Order: sequence, then structure tokens, then C-alpha cells
Amino acid sequence: MPDFNPDRVLSDLRELATFGAYETGVHRPTFSEVDVAARRWFAGKLEEAGLEASIDGIGNVYGFAPGDGPTILTGSHLESQNHAGWLDGALGMVYGLEAARALGRGVDVAAWCDEEGHFGSFIGSRSFTGLLPEEEIDGLANKYDGTPLREALAKAGLAGVPRRRLAPGRHKGFFEAHIEQGDTLIASGRKIGVVTAIVAIWQYRITAVGEQNHAGTTSMARRRDAGLALVRLLGEIDRTFPDLAGERSVWTCGRIALEPGAPSIIPGRASLLFQFRDADPATLDRLHAELYRLVAQANQTGRCPITVEIMGQSRPALMDPAMQDAIEAAAGPDLALHMPSGAGHDAQYLAREMPAAMLFVPSIGGISHHWTENTSDEDLVLGARVYCDAVARMLAT
Amino acid sequence: MPDFNPDRVLSDLRELATFGAYETGVHRPTFSEVDVAARRWFAGKLEEAGLEASIDGIGNVYGFAPGDGPTILTGSHLESQNHAGWLDGALGMVYGLEAARALGRGVDVAAWCDEEGHFGSFIGSRSFTGLLPEEEIDGLANKYDGTPLREALAKAGLAGVPRRRLAPGRHKGFFEAHIEQGDTLIASGRKIGVVTAIVAIWQYRITAVGEQNHAGTTSMARRRDAGLALVRLLGEIDRTFPDLAGERSVWTCGRIALEPGAPSIIPGRASLLFQFRDADPATLDRLHAELYRLVAQANQTGRCPITVEIMGQSRPALMDPAMQDAIEAAAGPDLALHMPSGAGHDAQYLAREMPAAMLFVPSIGGISHHWTENTSDEDLVLGARVYCDAVARMLAT
Repeated sequence: MPDFNPDRVLSDLRELATFGAYETGVHRPTFSEVDVAARRWFAGKLEEAGLEASIDGIGNVYGFAPGDGPTILTGSHLESQNHAGWLDGALGMVYGLEAARALGRGVDVAAWCDEEGHFGSFIGSRSFTGLLPEEEIDGLANKYDGTPLREALAKAGLAGVPRRRLAPGRHKGFFEAHIEQGDTLIASGRKIGVVTAIVAIWQYRITAVGEQNHAGTTSMARRRDAGLALVRLLGEIDRTFPDLAGERSVWTCGRIALEPGAPSIIPGRASLLFQFRDADPATLDRLHAELYRLVAQANQTGRCPITVEIMGQSRPALMDPAMQDAIEAAAGPDLALHMPSGAGHDAQYLAREMPAAMLFVPSIGGISHHWTENTSDEDLVLGARVYCDAVARMLAT
Repeated sequence: MPDFNPDRVLSDLRELATFGAYETGVHRPTFSEVDVAARRWFAGKLEEAGLEASIDGIGNVYGFAPGDGPTILTGSHLESQNHAGWLDGALGMVYGLEAARALGRGVDVAAWCDEEGHFGSFIGSRSFTGLLPEEEIDGLANKYDGTPLREALAKAGLAGVPRRRLAPGRHKGFFEAHIEQGDTLIASGRKIGVVTAIVAIWQYRITAVGEQNHAGTTSMARRRDAGLALVRLLGEIDRTFPDLAGERSVWTCGRIALEPGAPSIIPGRASLLFQFRDADPATLDRLHAELYRLVAQANQTGRCPITVEIMGQSRPALMDPAMQDAIEAAAGPDLALHMPSGAGHDAQYLAREMPAAMLFVPSIGGISHHWTENTSDEDLVLGARVYCDAVARMLAT
């Protein structure tokens, strides 16, 4: 059992939470002043821990063990969602740092920049794994204020700094700790989530075309209401998906737009964003087929042609079985619960290049992406103990 | 039979359509340069017809017959919706002008300003009937570019010009011609719509409150999706309203907003605008009761509280039976079809102060509020003949 220090873990987490403190959480958007300060502070902590610290040209913060390895690569992310929780990302960073300190060797730490997507999609871990071309960086800008990513990088002092790429053979695997962000652990009474897979997200833009017309003079029989066509489709999805879904499947319509969107005009066009998630490819295929069956059925019976555009169809990222075993062995069978991750994480990109694993700690009330997100100190300490032990076991294999 | 001039009617309509010509329609928003020019041009035509022409402090254009009356007040509106048809409003103006010319006496003409609502709601006819306080004018602005109404009035040279008010006892009734804007006449083969009532519009803002959460980590069982709650409610409305509605009832959801509106966030709040229209108070009451029943049912079974805010509940404006008879007598029984107006018109405000009537001509394809709106020359001429004859009959009673 590595000699980890529970007080150091809690005090580091609390100190990190002072960067951008907001209510009981943090507001630390990528490349905001507080975020850049947090990156520098964290690089200092890595340095203190005897690691070779650096920040690369995409904003990733690294603390690599001296020598060529092999190592376990650990980490998560430092920035937060807007006005969000103090542990989302931060937990995995401090656990990685603590593992490096506790084991004294064989642990690399990385903070993947912008996991929270203020500028793009997993740009830090995609850069490290060779999936982020320069041209994409040229085109990215802050979603909220429009600042180009290049400008934000320059302001952070990172213009012209090379981006670090994965060194083949150095890492035995990648290990990310994270808050669960749901209520599965809390509901089960278990304390340690052993992630089996990061679910795939299949996303669609669904559009109906009707006839824009006067809401007073156009009879019900004559009108072609594109908004109503999508409401009926969503009703059918709501009716048929539960029987076809897996136990942990989720599906969501997060946006609907009716055009022109006026109270007295029949929508001539309507669109929505729909997604479902599951870790099982067969379930994904089944839900996809059902969506297309419902759209085809609507197009046979309805008067507003509906089209489906696929926005994304990721594959589930399977976590490494041996690394899962190491976590379970460290936790003991009574504390561990195997579960998929419904949220995306940098581990899904690292898993393409090396064995990867994730450990979850419980989220009080299942709350995520809100400043009230929290985990008890007891669970934070327990998680750190299991995490450090699991890293030691992974290194030993 | 008054001596009306079909060529003069068509040429006046075509000349009016040159103000703001757009494709085969017009773009003549209230107080745009072309709209102000059209008002001046029309005042000139009224003057030529021997009427006392004026433009008042709200932009209404009047041509009043010399003397104290009694008269039939005629008219409609001169401005258009954006990029819309050449006859919507213009038809009723030229028919009124032609009736004044053909009868030579007893006909007043008025163009009610901004029926199309670029700045407000029926401000011209409400000003004339005493329902538009100065304070409301102070607060109105152009919906599209934000120009204050006071500024637009000043630019049109109307600052400080008094607003004309209804002179009690002068008018025997108000008579407005308009394109149908639907396909009832075309479908029936009849040529003259005799409006029985202008339908009431009952409008609601319906809001559901759920719990904003992560679309990946929140299980289906645990989530409270405000968007889904409204989709289910709209599905129930779609299912039950047809059996409760009247033959000509219409109901429409023209806008839905899910908050925060992101693909991966379960909507924590959702709202929509819903309206229904009918000319029959009992039908309106029945649909209103059903809406509340469905909301109560949703609140009993669902997990997202739904609230309903009444935005407006107008009363149907009944058209005068004797004036309807005059139109039918002028058209003859084979051409006339009694029908409600599904759209709002200035006649609904004039009907509060005097007997009022409306005559519809057919709209090709039922198209309205689009530049392709049209009516055949034959129907335009037939409508003018019936209109002038009906005015003569109204005056004679």
C-alpha cells in the first residue's frame, strides 16, 4: 500500500478550488486568468513532487517522472464548466499528483486542456494523441465570447510553444479519476465506480419541412405544421425507446427550434437535436434503427417530410480489464461497482493508444455541472487511497 | 347598381403595388419611406375623389365625405407584412376609394395605420376608437429595428399632429374588404366571403420546470426533463383537441424553447406559446377547459410542474347581420359564402363602436403573408362590384 497523505489530498483540492472560487464551486473557464494561474500553480506542485513539469502549446500541463518509463499516465483536467463544481476535473488531477508523490516513481501526470469544451472538443487529449491538426486550432474560438483559441494561447504565453505528443512505449496505461456526475454509486451504497466503458454518443439533427402559413386562416386539415411533425416523432420515441433501450441507455432532445417561431405563424420548418448514449454497440444499433423506423413511419403517414442528419456516432471506449481488476482489488469487492460512464472523458481518446481505466467517486445527489456539486471528505480520502493503491498494482503488473 | 369602374380598380391596385414592389408582391413596412409615400399618394387619390383628405397623428389616412353624414365608413390598411402580398390591406383601401367614387356621396374612407403590427397591435383603429393612450405610443418601437414609434411618426412629419377620434353618430357602419388568406372560398367554388365573425384568439404561455442535468450521467428514471414534459402535453392536445374543436377551430404552437438548449444538457426549463381560435364562445370555453384538464393531468402523473399563463383571451367580434344581408343580396346567393375570419382585422375594433361587416375575395392557393399571395383579376373586379353594390344597399337602409 503506497504511503498516501489524506490531508495533503484534501488541502490541495481546497487550494485548487480558490482559483476562480464561485459560491461553493468554481468558475474557471479554459484560459481565463484564474485558469492560467491554476495551471501555473499546478505545474509548481508537480515540480515540487520531483516531476519534470511543463505546459505545452495547447495548454496541457505535464509532470513526467524522470527517465524513460514505463509509467502509468494519470490525470484529468483543470478548467471547469461555467459556475460549476470544485471537483470535476480537479479530483483526477490531485489524485494523480498524490499517486506520484506517494509512489515516488513510475507516475506521469497530465492535465488535458479544455476537456470542458469552452473552445473545442477534447483538444488537449486529442493533441497529445495526434488527432488535432493545426488547421482545426486555427478555426477554434471561445463559444461564449468568440476569442480565437490562437489569441487565448498567446495571452497565456503559449504561442509558438511546441505541442507534446505521446512517446510510444513510455506509458503502460492511462488512469483517470473523476466524480461520477450521476447517482448510481449513491443509490447503490458502493463507494468506488470501476468504469467498464465510456459510452458512445450518437447525435442527430432532425428536420421537418412543412408550410409556413397563417395560424388563423389555415384550416387544421390543410395545414402542414413542421413543429407538430417533430412533436409527434418525439412522442413516438418516448413511447417505443424504453422497450428497446438497455438498462443504462439514455436519450435526450436538448434543443427544438420552430421557424419562424412566432405565436401566430404555423412553423414552416422545425429542427431538433437528439442524442442517445450506451456502452453496448448492439443497443446503439437497435436505437439507431428504431429512430430511422419512426422517421420512415412519420414520412409515410405525415405531411411534413422529415430528414435525419447524423452529427456524430462515436464508438464506446472500452476500459482495460486488467486495469479494472487492479482498481477492484484495491477497493475490495464490497466497495467497488462496475459501471459505464455516461459522460465523455479524455480517457476515451487515451484508450485509443494505450490501456485505460477510470475510477469514480460518489457525487452527492448526483449533481454535476453546477456549483453545488460535491463529494464527502470521507469519500474523497477513500477514493485517493484506492486510486494510489490501484496505480501501484498497475505498475507492478 | 352604382357605376363602378373595373379598370380604375385594377389600375389603382397596380399603382399602389409599385410602392415597395418586391418580386410579385410588396415590402412596405409601416412608416418605411415607401409606406409614407403610399400614404401621401393615397391621400391624393381621396382628394381627387372629392373627399376631405388628411393624415392624423397616428398615421391613419382619411378621406371623409363633405358634411356630417351619415356615411358608411370603409377601409382597411396600406402597409404590408415584410416581403408579402400586394393585395393584403390594399384591396380594402382601393375598394373603399372606388365605392366613394362610384356612389359620389355617403362614403368615408380610412386607412388604419399598422394593422400588420410592425410597431404595435392595431394602433390605427384603436386610436380612432379611443383605445390607444399616449403612454402606450411612448413605449412602442419597431419590432425589427427598434426605432421608437415617436421617432417614426416625427420622420413621417406627423409629430404633434392631432389624432382623429370617432365622431359619434356620423357612421352607419364600417365595411372592410380583404383577401380571405385561406382556401375556404377556393375550395367551395364561391367567390364572395360574407364574414360572420372575426374569431377570438386565446393565447397561452405554458412553462414546465424540471431539473437541468447532464444528458449522459443522469438515468432516465431519475431525470426530470422539462422539454419532454411539454412534448407529452402537446401530444395530448394533438390527441384530444380534434374531438372537442368546432368545424373551423384552429390551434397552434408557434414557438418552443428548451433551456439551456444544449445537445448534452437535459432541459431544466421549457416554455411554449400556444393559441387557439374560434368564433364560438362555447367552443373557446371547451378548448380552454381541455387545456387546463390536460395540464392538471400532466401535473398529477409527471415530474415537471407545468404552469399556464394566459397571454390573451379576446372575444369574437360579431359582424352585423343586416350588413351581412346587404353583402349577400349584392352578391346573389350562388356567389356568397358565410364564413368566420380566422385572422384579426381592424373591423374587430370598429365593431365595438358601430355595426361592422367584412367581405372576402378568394386567395389563390390560400396563400397569405408571402409575396406569392394573389387573386385573379376576374375575382378582384367581381369583388369590387359586389362591394360597391353592398355599400349602396347599406346606405339605403
